[in-house]
Amino acid sequence: MFKIKIFSPGKTKEPWLRDALAEYEKRLRGEVSIEWMVNCERVQKEGAYICLDVEGEDLTSPEFSKFLYKKFERGGSRLNIVIGGPEGVPEELRKNATECISFSKLTFTHQMIRVILLEQIYRAVQIEKGSGYHRAD
Amino acid sequence: MFKIKIFSPGKTKEPWLRDALAEYEKRLRGEVSIEWMVNCERVQKEGAYICLDVEGEDLTSPEFSKFLYKKFERGGSRLNIVIGGPEGVPEELRKNATECISFSKLTFTHQMIRVILLEQIYRAVQIEKGSGYHRAD
Repeated sequence: MFKIKIFSPGKTKEPWLRDALAEYEKRLRGEVSIEWMVNCERVQKEGAYICLDVEGEDLTSPEFSKFLYKKFERGGSRLNIVIGGPEGVPEELRKNATECISFSKLTFTHQMIRVILLEQIYRAVQIEKGSGYHRAD
Repeated sequence: MFKIKIFSPGKTKEPWLRDALAEYEKRLRGEVSIEWMVNCERVQKEGAYICLDVEGEDLTSPEFSKFLYKKFERGGSRLNIVIGGPEGVPEELRKNATECISFSKLTFTHQMIRVILLEQIYRAVQIEKGSGYHRAD
């Protein structure tokens, strides 16, 4: 069982986004537990963390899968991810992150980034397991 | 009033995705009308079209906004976009497209791509209008 803490301030207000997050958390159950943290600054007390930022390194989904499992291996099955709020990841947190990765050059709402991240985590697990989800869905 | 036809086969099954699409179509009302076309092949009867493909050119949101309005200008306020199905855009359609653009190196579900595309169209309109949505949301 892997544990991911995602640091992103603010509530998910829109019902469709809440439903989407609930759906992917359900699919991940038993494999990866997701904990939402509203206070980004607190990540510094957790040890190592990565950040998701438009300036970070672009990865494909198979690369993200490898990246994730390497992080689990090195981090005792745990990983902290800062995705920031409407303004992105605060500069101070960005410069202290182990790595910054990017999901797109586009700007998404930080709310939508939550859903995209969970789907990519779910996809990463399926790629690692060799299930038919990647490409087939 | 701009008109965009989006070519992507298959129904949107998950309720949260349907809700998300409805939300962005509502926000776009009066500015951009969206028509969903399930038969990708039919785009070739529509004249020029662009495609969304992982191999396409990466754009930032402001670049996508400029790109979109240039397309509207040249296409008489109309634009056809092929996003394809689970297998992406068929090779034959890809090679005949005016341009291919990419939203990410990641693979998303083709269902989620629909929501991401509508949000980027909405964002593009807000960038063009100079509203506070881009960056602030």
